[in-house]
Amino acid sequence: MATGHTDPQRRERIIAATLDLIADEGVAGVSHRKIAARAGVPLGSMTYHFTGIDQLFREAFTCFADHIVAVFDAHLATPTDRDQAREAVADLVHVLSEGSQRDLVLTQELYILAARQPAYRELTHAWMGRSRTHLEKHFDPDTARQLDALIEGLTLHRALDSEPHDRALTLEAVTRITTTGR
Amino acid sequence: MATGHTDPQRRERIIAATLDLIADEGVAGVSHRKIAARAGVPLGSMTYHFTGIDQLFREAFTCFADHIVAVFDAHLATPTDRDQAREAVADLVHVLSEGSQRDLVLTQELYILAARQPAYRELTHAWMGRSRTHLEKHFDPDTARQLDALIEGLTLHRALDSEPHDRALTLEAVTRITTTGR
Repeated sequence: MATGHTDPQRRERIIAATLDLIADEGVAGVSHRKIAARAGVPLGSMTYHFTGIDQLFREAFTCFADHIVAVFDAHLATPTDRDQAREAVADLVHVLSEGSQRDLVLTQELYILAARQPAYRELTHAWMGRSRTHLEKHFDPDTARQLDALIEGLTLHRALDSEPHDRALTLEAVTRITTTGR
Repeated sequence: MATGHTDPQRRERIIAATLDLIADEGVAGVSHRKIAARAGVPLGSMTYHFTGIDQLFREAFTCFADHIVAVFDAHLATPTDRDQAREAVADLVHVLSEGSQRDLVLTQELYILAARQPAYRELTHAWMGRSRTHLEKHFDPDTARQLDALIEGLTLHRALDSEPHDRALTLEAVTRITTTGR
């Protein structure tokens, strides 16, 4: 049987299997045994790569945050003025709220972990900071923070509403919250 | 042993026990047996009052929504002008985000149920509509909808951040999103 040393993808497979399991069964349904089976690795190799389930959750959710932060980056890298940036943020809200149910579920699973166990708020804190870095390419830090919260709320409300609001309302909200200096 | 007929509080006790269990163990950890034990009612009485776990979840989360909507009502009933209403909304965000971990956990448990099972989006849809009714005492419907999403995002970000933003930033965000007619 391959060891960790000769199977360099094993660590990544374990993280991917952890996220798949959380998406399917929730944080509460995850165990070392289930992850090892899903990743196709020997149960004993889990402790070679990870000190425990806490480290696994941290690395898996950091990997998931990388994915969502990359969506922020993709939308916010190209706009060249504020109006373009506002349109890009509206697009971002609609992409996130109409995207995969998996992303919605994984986000909520992380939030519930952080709601139950404050130690995980380091992860949500770091994630919010990384998202704001991309918003700060176009908006001052206080505005970026307000806008990041608005993106969260609009995305969540669209995703969880049986009659989600339209893009015009999203763009109006984004424009209002980014209009400064009155 | 008392029947449902002679114990009119039994139904309410079952709903309260359901919420307590969800807060402690999550939706995934709930069963008829556990609820009956926690409520101190015979297991057989559960089917007398509720057709199944789905009806129980629906009534329990509707009861929880009543509680949060009452917090909206308490803040938004008294302001007599827009500036007072904005201050009241800022207070609301800080009360919700600094309040009981139980409320935060139950909110996220409902969201994850709705994320996993779209049929529960009727509940989140109805809840959002009820919250907006109180905001519409002071703001037009489109503004109330944007503001409701902002309240959600600001509350969640404050609750899940290890360094939550201050009230001045909340009030600035609320003021911006409720400033219309430019």
